[in-house]
Amino acid sequence: MKRDFTLDTKRFHRQGFPEAIYSIGKSEKQIFDIVSKMIKNPTPTIITKIEKNLAAKIKKKFPKTKYHEKAKLVVINSAKSIVARCVISNRVNPLKKIGKNYIAVITAGTSDIPYAEETAVVAETLGNNVERIYDVGVAGIHRLFKFSEVIKNASCVVVCAGMEGALPSVVGGLVSKVVIGVPTSTGYGTGKGGYSALLTMLNSCSPNVCVVNIDNGFGAGIIASIINRTQMKSDKDGLDLSV
Amino acid sequence: MKRDFTLDTKRFHRQGFPEAIYSIGKSEKQIFDIVSKMIKNPTPTIITKIEKNLAAKIKKKFPKTKYHEKAKLVVINSAKSIVARCVISNRVNPLKKIGKNYIAVITAGTSDIPYAEETAVVAETLGNNVERIYDVGVAGIHRLFKFSEVIKNASCVVVCAGMEGALPSVVGGLVSKVVIGVPTSTGYGTGKGGYSALLTMLNSCSPNVCVVNIDNGFGAGIIASIINRTQMKSDKDGLDLSV
Amino acid sequence: MKRDFTLDTKRFHRQGFPEAIYSIGKSEKQIFDIVSKMIKNPTPTIITKIEKNLAAKIKKKFPKTKYHEKAKLVVINSAKSIVARCVISNRVNPLKKIGKNYIAVITAGTSDIPYAEETAVVAETLGNNVERIYDVGVAGIHRLFKFSEVIKNASCVVVCAGMEGALPSVVGGLVSKVVIGVPTSTGYGTGKGGYSALLTMLNSCSPNVCVVNIDNGFGAGIIASIINRTQMKSDKDGLDLSV
Amino acid sequence: MKRDFTLDTKRFHRQGFPEAIYSIGKSEKQIFDIVSKMIKNPTPTIITKIEKNLAAKIKKKFPKTKYHEKAKLVVINSAKSIVARCVISNRVNPLKKIGKNYIAVITAGTSDIPYAEETAVVAETLGNNVERIYDVGVAGIHRLFKFSEVIKNASCVVVCAGMEGALPSVVGGLVSKVVIGVPTSTGYGTGKGGYSALLTMLNSCSPNVCVVNIDNGFGAGIIASIINRTQMKSDKDGLDLSV
Amino acid sequence: MKRDFTLDTKRFHRQGFPEAIYSIGKSEKQIFDIVSKMIKNPTPTIITKIEKNLAAKIKKKFPKTKYHEKAKLVVINSAKSIVARCVISNRVNPLKKIGKNYIAVITAGTSDIPYAEETAVVAETLGNNVERIYDVGVAGIHRLFKFSEVIKNASCVVVCAGMEGALPSVVGGLVSKVVIGVPTSTGYGTGKGGYSALLTMLNSCSPNVCVVNIDNGFGAGIIASIINRTQMKSDKDGLDLSV
Amino acid sequence: MKRDFTLDTKRFHRQGFPEAIYSIGKSEKQIFDIVSKMIKNPTPTIITKIEKNLAAKIKKKFPKTKYHEKAKLVVINSAKSIVARCVISNRVNPLKKIGKNYIAVITAGTSDIPYAEETAVVAETLGNNVERIYDVGVAGIHRLFKFSEVIKNASCVVVCAGMEGALPSVVGGLVSKVVIGVPTSTGYGTGKGGYSALLTMLNSCSPNVCVVNIDNGFGAGIIASIINRTQMKSDKDGLDLSV
Amino acid sequence: MKRDFTLDTKRFHRQGFPEAIYSIGKSEKQIFDIVSKMIKNPTPTIITKIEKNLAAKIKKKFPKTKYHEKAKLVVINSAKSIVARCVISNRVNPLKKIGKNYIAVITAGTSDIPYAEETAVVAETLGNNVERIYDVGVAGIHRLFKFSEVIKNASCVVVCAGMEGALPSVVGGLVSKVVIGVPTSTGYGTGKGGYSALLTMLNSCSPNVCVVNIDNGFGAGIIASIINRTQMKSDKDGLDLSV
Amino acid sequence: MKRDFTLDTKRFHRQGFPEAIYSIGKSEKQIFDIVSKMIKNPTPTIITKIEKNLAAKIKKKFPKTKYHEKAKLVVINSAKSIVARCVISNRVNPLKKIGKNYIAVITAGTSDIPYAEETAVVAETLGNNVERIYDVGVAGIHRLFKFSEVIKNASCVVVCAGMEGALPSVVGGLVSKVVIGVPTSTGYGTGKGGYSALLTMLNSCSPNVCVVNIDNGFGAGIIASIINRTQMKSDKDGLDLSV
Repeated sequence: MKRDFTLDTKRFHRQGFPEAIYSIGKSEKQIFDIVSKMIKNPTPTIITKIEKNLAAKIKKKFPKTKYHEKAKLVVINSAKSIVARCVISNRVNPLKKIGKNYIAVITAGTSDIPYAEETAVVAETLGNNVERIYDVGVAGIHRLFKFSEVIKNASCVVVCAGMEGALPSVVGGLVSKVVIGVPTSTGYGTGKGGYSALLTMLNSCSPNVCVVNIDNGFGAGIIASIINRTQMKSDKDGLDLSV
Repeated sequence: MKRDFTLDTKRFHRQGFPEAIYSIGKSEKQIFDIVSKMIKNPTPTIITKIEKNLAAKIKKKFPKTKYHEKAKLVVINSAKSIVARCVISNRVNPLKKIGKNYIAVITAGTSDIPYAEETAVVAETLGNNVERIYDVGVAGIHRLFKFSEVIKNASCVVVCAGMEGALPSVVGGLVSKVVIGVPTSTGYGTGKGGYSALLTMLNSCSPNVCVVNIDNGFGAGIIASIINRTQMKSDKDGLDLSV
Repeated sequence: MKRDFTLDTKRFHRQGFPEAIYSIGKSEKQIFDIVSKMIKNPTPTIITKIEKNLAAKIKKKFPKTKYHEKAKLVVINSAKSIVARCVISNRVNPLKKIGKNYIAVITAGTSDIPYAEETAVVAETLGNNVERIYDVGVAGIHRLFKFSEVIKNASCVVVCAGMEGALPSVVGGLVSKVVIGVPTSTGYGTGKGGYSALLTMLNSCSPNVCVVNIDNGFGAGIIASIINRTQMKSDKDGLDLSV
Repeated sequence: MKRDFTLDTKRFHRQGFPEAIYSIGKSEKQIFDIVSKMIKNPTPTIITKIEKNLAAKIKKKFPKTKYHEKAKLVVINSAKSIVARCVISNRVNPLKKIGKNYIAVITAGTSDIPYAEETAVVAETLGNNVERIYDVGVAGIHRLFKFSEVIKNASCVVVCAGMEGALPSVVGGLVSKVVIGVPTSTGYGTGKGGYSALLTMLNSCSPNVCVVNIDNGFGAGIIASIINRTQMKSDKDGLDLSV
Repeated sequence: MKRDFTLDTKRFHRQGFPEAIYSIGKSEKQIFDIVSKMIKNPTPTIITKIEKNLAAKIKKKFPKTKYHEKAKLVVINSAKSIVARCVISNRVNPLKKIGKNYIAVITAGTSDIPYAEETAVVAETLGNNVERIYDVGVAGIHRLFKFSEVIKNASCVVVCAGMEGALPSVVGGLVSKVVIGVPTSTGYGTGKGGYSALLTMLNSCSPNVCVVNIDNGFGAGIIASIINRTQMKSDKDGLDLSV
Repeated sequence: MKRDFTLDTKRFHRQGFPEAIYSIGKSEKQIFDIVSKMIKNPTPTIITKIEKNLAAKIKKKFPKTKYHEKAKLVVINSAKSIVARCVISNRVNPLKKIGKNYIAVITAGTSDIPYAEETAVVAETLGNNVERIYDVGVAGIHRLFKFSEVIKNASCVVVCAGMEGALPSVVGGLVSKVVIGVPTSTGYGTGKGGYSALLTMLNSCSPNVCVVNIDNGFGAGIIASIINRTQMKSDKDGLDLSV
Repeated sequence: MKRDFTLDTKRFHRQGFPEAIYSIGKSEKQIFDIVSKMIKNPTPTIITKIEKNLAAKIKKKFPKTKYHEKAKLVVINSAKSIVARCVISNRVNPLKKIGKNYIAVITAGTSDIPYAEETAVVAETLGNNVERIYDVGVAGIHRLFKFSEVIKNASCVVVCAGMEGALPSVVGGLVSKVVIGVPTSTGYGTGKGGYSALLTMLNSCSPNVCVVNIDNGFGAGIIASIINRTQMKSDKDGLDLSV
Repeated sequence: MKRDFTLDTKRFHRQGFPEAIYSIGKSEKQIFDIVSKMIKNPTPTIITKIEKNLAAKIKKKFPKTKYHEKAKLVVINSAKSIVARCVISNRVNPLKKIGKNYIAVITAGTSDIPYAEETAVVAETLGNNVERIYDVGVAGIHRLFKFSEVIKNASCVVVCAGMEGALPSVVGGLVSKVVIGVPTSTGYGTGKGGYSALLTMLNSCSPNVCVVNIDNGFGAGIIASIINRTQMKSDKDGLDLSV
């Protein structure tokens, strides 16, 4: 009998970022089959949107997996990932670089944290430093300004916001870096589902704002990591992580 | 033969704000008939969304009307309106009050000005002072802060914004007054038509923000005027403008 | 470890209205942490959309909080709020004024009451008088007219309506005050979610109608309170509540 | 060569109402071909949404057609229609009945008149009496009440309204007859295109309100005519117009 | 303390159709309060969208209420309604008329039956005869044609359809009466929620089709009843049910 | 009492494909009644979207039914269907043909499999060969190219995809056959519900792509079967399956 | 300097259907450049949505192109296409087959003809026979039944319909072939743009209905041609048009 | 009198990218005023969406401006921009770097070129190298693969696509860099306006795809430039362009 999946086991080698498994709509059996196949692979894999109960079952069966509860992510081979990257790139010692470059991950409200954590954990799994700045939305804009230095010095900024989703525009007007807007499904009435925040971010007057799908903290983590890694990489000449 | 309209000639007496005629979808003949009827009435009337050419025809036939080109408004009996108000209320000398209270009318961009002017001219026609603060959108938030004192001291703030429409939220977080958001149809792509700005304003985290229809500068002018007038009025006891 | 929230403990001093905590999407732990921090603050805080069970847990742990079941609000420091306001404004005795100004809160149907109560309790928490007029929708317009005097004499009117949401337009045509429309998610078919009511209110022919987000009784309460308070304040000269 | 149309020349005999030709999207040649075919038929035909210029060309070529400018309708064989109906039904003298039953056609504003006229002219073409009551929208509800007797005594009421479209609900609450709501595309911002008015009418709390497509004055005229005709017919026993 | 509802106890006398209570969003207590008030009234009242369990509780407390499970309706004073009508109209013996006029209620599929039953039970409660024709959708159009005589002879036709909602158009092309389309929320994918069926019906090429809200079997029952009653009434001269 | 359904027992004879019963919105009793009627019929019937528990109850009562868990289909008379077809067509031995023609059923991801299985099982029930190619979406396009020969040689290709739904376009550019796109409701944020995938497929630049409703694996199976059967049929002259 | 296009000159060889050039959004210069390149190629090319004026300019410069006015198509190398196909397939004489298989192209109304002609001309350009059946929509379903034999005997049916778009469902219930629905942008109000018709077709209860984009007569012509050609082809064994 | 704009003349110094003026909705006078002010500033400014005629007027009055017709951009001070950057950053000679890093700008079709040119010209104005790869959409995916080396070696990839918008997903699966999707308004039917393409890109399975507003080539150019510049910059240590 045929398998239900055709895993892309070479993605990390080909693209430098991990295979991600979106868990919604997959049966427990399918997820277990995927984990048992990917765990043999020496590169990182990430399973997204996993609830606590299922994570416990996965952990029990595959003790080497790690669950990040706030981010709802199961990470496979994260510990090895740093080493794996070194082996692949063969030219960089990421540990040394860690102190220098970082990604700023910001939320407008407390309810946006799960998506911000998804971004942050993905970025950390890939060896990036992350600065978390949470609950600094535009209704009290002075809260944001307290953090302006740490935001301006990041190599890339991720902003998660639901409701009116105005924070990326404001941040975009302050920094010279790329701002990745993550609209979140936080909200009620016309804000339910995140469309209001999405539209706000797409129409940002700050031209350095780009956008990912509603609640797509994972994608933001990958994109931020590519941008941040470029800077890490380019402190040394000649290395080429993008196999 | 019956008439095509049933004008509400008592609205000013009943509600304290003028009958407004929305011109789109009305024939020139219908508009002329309305003007010739309303001009005999000693209270103000406002015709909205009038293009320059039509305004010239109206002016030619009814020299006492006044056209505000940026606002696309024709005003009937504006000069008399101040007096009319005094007569009606019988207790207040608005001229004396003018220096004290004012409405702040703000735009995010230059393209939002026609709607802001609609608000400002309507408010002025009703005897209010207006402070205009234009093109101070969130992509360069420092431009806004230059005006914070004048904004904070207004009795009411109207903010016109298209594109992402984030400015009312930011203003709402700074002041203790009501902020009336006017989403404008300025924008392109997902911003075309003003829905993005509308949703942003409806989902504002600043609870003092209320919203009117897209491009409805007229309504914002009426609401701001009611709020501002209350303060003018209440400096004297006992007067009752709301006949 | 960092906190998940950056509370705006000075909002009441800065803006004259309380910090609001929208509970949906927050964990119990986050809500408890917020309450335990805000309760030390001598100004009011309001937590919205709290179900009965959670309210009971909060009450048990923080006996000084008060739950308003119909409105689904937990209020912190409400009792102190009157005093707090006096202290802050230093010039007004709100108790004396209470008999004079009030906000009318109206619903079209019985199902709109939770949102109306949200408005009413918020306004009362801030020291305003409220007149409740419930279930007087346009399908039996004579029910409304019985209350016309009390509606006309309010300093501001809030109208909550789902389904076709036509009531604010009708009320807007009767009064000379600002009407704040609260579209509610009451309805089925094309009325589900409140978009029909929202569009009706945004397109109101009565220019004194402004709108807040679907089900946003809280915002309506704040806005009505600002308008009503202005009149209270202005019966005395010189006081300035808007710090 | 085949023809571009398959006209339903028996519709009037089969259903008692005329074949209608929606002109938009048809070439002048197609419309001319249709007229030249239908004009030979002794039953009425109606062509909708015809602009003045095209109507003049049709009139020139087919002098027996009649153009109703406000309604943008070209009527073919209207004069004969009364006779035709008598011949078909063989049992009723409509002229005698005319004084007794009528359809009330109401508009909320002046801009809704073209659609109301479409309804009224269609109904008159089919031999019904029509009472027109225009520009009595909910923002000045007292204007409506002046006409309550004539509205209550109609056998059926058609209400055309754009913007917030609230008038059918109010009328629906006053009468014991069927109210046919015609949402019109009159409006701007969120009201553009008539969706707001459509949703309002679909969600009417008055259960006697039914709805037709936006700007579909023609359909409303047919439905009103069927209901009104039933009453005319039933004053005499035994007649059966519905061949 | 004030009541949560302002019941329209005179609706039956004023309009000839019953007060309807939409149960969704109301608490059990509110529904019980309403029943206990309405049951004293000698005219019919209908409560819609009541699930089996709640109906049982109502029945237990108010044994005179009647639950129609398929239609999810609780009817109050239905038995009396016939008498009530006679008393009110004072001139008609509905029992004699019953054999003559009827409403045809049609569904496209089996899943549309709950809404059709809502229509049918409402109409029967008001003293009308009803012919039910279920599951005859357009995918097997021959099923419909078997019933053409009974459909053509109805005084009014109600068609409930979900999915593509095409049946009202086809029926509309066959009959000379008014067809009331009830779009239902039956469907999946783009058909979920009933918008597809609603749009189909609004755009019907058959001009005798009018539409009510998605799943609004109640409204269709009222409208059909008014039309059918007119014919009943008009078999006798002079009676006037529409008080 | 009347029945709730009007089954089309002749569909297989008339159209060559089975009556399908969409189970959602039907009561268990209704489904049981349908099965007990259809099982007496010697042609196949398919019930869609049946969950495991209900399938078990059906199986217990009607042991001859077969449940396909992944596809959520209950098949009645599948075994007989091959024979039935032979009897009807009287001219073809499908078993001989089986090795030659086949339908390719492809999914972009693992979560799309339920819909693909719906297609595959329907097609197999009707006597077609099916090749399943699962989880080969565009994010790793090389996975698709491994299967290009088997895809190119199919007589028809069905592609099930959620999220961005881009796979049918790519497949459409590779083959000379008809590609049937099945958008699936797999996705989150703007992808939730399948509208994104639907729009992508409708806008395909590959002109050989047609589309069915979101999650409509059943329809895709029928259409693919008609196309594939034509080729089977046409290897022999003269046979006419389309009774 | 680089060219603005990368033409797929091998599409006809690879897929058996022509390269299509969608003209909207291309400059005249770009279209001329494309024609001058494609005309050298011995396989057919089709340019869609070309207005009369532009077609005349193209014709003047490239006399061998042919303009189909109703279909708004410019065809390049159509004359050669039959021969080209023979050369490519080397095994079939399409002329002999022409009398046998055909595609039925149906419209609901006269305004749908441009899209139907797009389908018909595309199919004819590729060597298919076409039967046109125009203006037979569901409001007069008897018009359709007159053509049932010619429809049932087609190898494939294309149905173009705007407004309510119900015709494909009805046709789908009558035939055993694939029905390709082409929703058209014909309509007004909620029917404007074709979304109503699109939704109707996607939700068809007839499972043999598939759908293409609104107004996409071109795609329907390609798909119908592939299906029809299969049958032509398969009357002879061994030919393989799908290079 | 007050000015209609509050230009952000320091944006280039603060953020490293130019002030952009969106021309739609601005009067000619406003644009001329802006140009005459910005041209005195030694940093680049870009005016977007300028039609040919207006550009000629601007050029006539301000000969130093440069118009890029395909991109519809007017560039002010582009020549100086390279120098300006050097002066500001004081540490980098961009000319030397030019040969090394580049941005790949790709379109799916010819109609997407205006937006791609907007991106390309903006990027070039800011001193970046650009590789243009046009008309390589997914319907002929082999066209894309010819360019895989040049795409993989870019420091960042911008993909402009209308219609189904699938190209960014495919490109995203091939490269290890950030892919910026620009949905374009190219398309018809459900593709009109670009929403289909936007949704496709937001739902991309390739996690390295981020998105900007429909037709926002300008924003994509800024973001690509920031990413590309980072790499240029980081070949030298210590430089800090982000003032």
